[in-house]
Amino acid sequence: MITYDHNLGWRADDDANELMAEAFGNLVYEREKGVVGYYNLPFDSGLIVSEAEAYAASSDAVRNCDTIAVIGIGGSSLGAKAVDSILRPRSPEAKRLLFLENPDPVDIEEKFDTLQKEKTLFIVISKSGTTVETISIFKAAVERFGLDLDGEDRERVIAITDEGSPLCHFIDRHGLKAYTIPHNVGGRFSVLSSVGIVPLTLAGYDTRSILSGASEMVERFFDAQEEHLLIKAAFIASSWREYRINVVFAYASRLEDFTKWYVQLWGESLGKIDRCGNRVGPTPVGHIGPVDQHSFLQLVMQGPRDKSVTFIKVEDFEKSLKIPDIRLEHIEKSDYLNGHTFNELINAECDATMESLAGEGIPVDSITMSRADERSVGELIAYYELLTSLTGAMLHINTYDQPGVETGKRILAKKFEKG
Amino acid sequence: MITYDHNLGWRADDDANELMAEAFGNLVYEREKGVVGYYNLPFDSGLIVSEAEAYAASSDAVRNCDTIAVIGIGGSSLGAKAVDSILRPRSPEAKRLLFLENPDPVDIEEKFDTLQKEKTLFIVISKSGTTVETISIFKAAVERFGLDLDGEDRERVIAITDEGSPLCHFIDRHGLKAYTIPHNVGGRFSVLSSVGIVPLTLAGYDTRSILSGASEMVERFFDAQEEHLLIKAAFIASSWREYRINVVFAYASRLEDFTKWYVQLWGESLGKIDRCGNRVGPTPVGHIGPVDQHSFLQLVMQGPRDKSVTFIKVEDFEKSLKIPDIRLEHIEKSDYLNGHTFNELINAECDATMESLAGEGIPVDSITMSRADERSVGELIAYYELLTSLTGAMLHINTYDQPGVETGKRILAKKFEKG
Repeated sequence: MITYDHNLGWRADDDANELMAEAFGNLVYEREKGVVGYYNLPFDSGLIVSEAEAYAASSDAVRNCDTIAVIGIGGSSLGAKAVDSILRPRSPEAKRLLFLENPDPVDIEEKFDTLQKEKTLFIVISKSGTTVETISIFKAAVERFGLDLDGEDRERVIAITDEGSPLCHFIDRHGLKAYTIPHNVGGRFSVLSSVGIVPLTLAGYDTRSILSGASEMVERFFDAQEEHLLIKAAFIASSWREYRINVVFAYASRLEDFTKWYVQLWGESLGKIDRCGNRVGPTPVGHIGPVDQHSFLQLVMQGPRDKSVTFIKVEDFEKSLKIPDIRLEHIEKSDYLNGHTFNELINAECDATMESLAGEGIPVDSITMSRADERSVGELIAYYELLTSLTGAMLHINTYDQPGVETGKRILAKKFEKG
Repeated sequence: MITYDHNLGWRADDDANELMAEAFGNLVYEREKGVVGYYNLPFDSGLIVSEAEAYAASSDAVRNCDTIAVIGIGGSSLGAKAVDSILRPRSPEAKRLLFLENPDPVDIEEKFDTLQKEKTLFIVISKSGTTVETISIFKAAVERFGLDLDGEDRERVIAITDEGSPLCHFIDRHGLKAYTIPHNVGGRFSVLSSVGIVPLTLAGYDTRSILSGASEMVERFFDAQEEHLLIKAAFIASSWREYRINVVFAYASRLEDFTKWYVQLWGESLGKIDRCGNRVGPTPVGHIGPVDQHSFLQLVMQGPRDKSVTFIKVEDFEKSLKIPDIRLEHIEKSDYLNGHTFNELINAECDATMESLAGEGIPVDSITMSRADERSVGELIAYYELLTSLTGAMLHINTYDQPGVETGKRILAKKFEKG
């Protein structure tokens, strides 16, 4: 379960109320008309879980593997990676998920060196089916592990892609296993589609509970029971020119990959040219507390007042590790913590930091996960996706495209054509 | 070796030239008067290397360990961690460095579970000697591993701290091994002091070459041969209100921890109230390309024009991994890369992204490491430290303090006193 609180120093006026009502209507429309598909994933993807479970039970390649190597980048990897990092400590028995994202030769070789073909399932994920990094790394895997795609290794490769994409045709040609992504689900909103659900289910995670947490959040939202989401979106949309940066301070090491997912979701969805031709969008930044308290906090406290800060907390870490009740001569200053748990310490640091920022008049809000478990992860994902759609609607932009990344791709191709 | 290039769309006018001359003079003064100590570390820390090497040769605990567990947070861990991540692929024989930073119970227990006391050297690092996270984790280690600090485990614990600090007194009391940090070297500028050099040397890294790369950069700078540093600092200092965010896009996975070091160095040094009472400071953000091209780039390209972007490249990854010259039916679109190396691909992506941003008029600059080796790392560290001092001088702030982080510490202590 997740709960919220905020101290934004901001109140909705009539304009903001109108903006919220209009944005809410937009999302209802997008959902009802099927313009945007991710709203229904928490309800629809149960079928994928069942199918993947049945497949896992019937496939020797899945049963015998100890590692699932996910070849994908951006929206094709960040979501499953975030979920894997959060849930791993609760699910030590889950198969290892290894993400091959970056076309960095050192990175790829290091990861390849940890793989044994007989113990590996490769999942290639590309929505367009043509992502150059993904296809290149896949080819390198085919060569390195001598994958026989028409013979004995046919079960060792699965693809996830748009129906009708080049990768989809490739898969059909070899008769390999594939899962598709609904056309109306964008890459960065796809974690609860096959893109995240298939690797996570095959690894052995309880993906049904993730979906169930997400579906409850989506239902409550469309039942108009999550007003705080509208308020937060309205605050961001109407004050991003003042508070240009939203910092997420996540107080748990395992949330680091989640902050990366959030950065992509916000950055790529909200950094746009709006319908009046203005360049808009807050900048998302992810940090891990208390580590980054010893780093970025000074800038937030005393630097320019251009940041709002969101704290993500885990109430119960499900580990009772204590600060031992021992006294070490000369370093007794922190003995006030003796006998307390690290769980208490990290959360007290979160609260203390939040209070010190609020005391300076810096807009803060908090999201508390009762536990870092499957349901809370599902809720948290749905929370951020809905928040992004709402903010995009209020900014009058197309939340779901990414025209700005095309130029670089064209320049890249030209560099090699010339060469 | 590292080289630079920039396309900032900015030229120094008379005011900027004056600002540069004044800031350069400031740094010369700080160095000559010993106000700021890090300038001399590349020259002075050779003695620490020699001492640490001699100690390593004579100590059974060091010789027999396979892991060095560094207990420290912020400036006490980020530097060594960054260097370890960059150099690890070149130095597979170096002992494992494990950083215990975050008082997250799951994180601590996971790391403790990988340690065997007989094979571990613990290095406790705290400049003030009172950091609550560090002292608490150290106590937890004492309990978990039953460290006998007056008996058989005396060689297994080393401390690095300010002379005369509480931790220093604790060490003296037990007669343990300690290294001190010069008083005029701040935590975030301490990577080339004992703080970084001791763990890296004991792990087996060639720290002399790191120092030598850094000393060359410092010498060239004070010989007025690194004007680009002055120009970049002047650009940042004079236009941060327009370009409020500096994004480092590092094109190598192993540079991720370096971007965190950079974020601390900038954030904590430059986010300040200036001598006129204004809140100033650019916001540092670290990203890894090409992964984050599939994420944050859209925002940079089409969002608000409030960002400058610095690209860090590695020219030679020293890995010849190729994109195999194989044709997979239907996914031939990226076959133009066949036969090229991943090294070429990742750098071409860097160049293409840089060109596409420059084409939009976004200020960009680049830092190219010929190789991700010891000398280049030393140069890169010195480059960023000097850039930070220059920018701070031009912003008319105290670059070396961090008054904004004290409030949270006081609130934290109160929470436990009350309870």
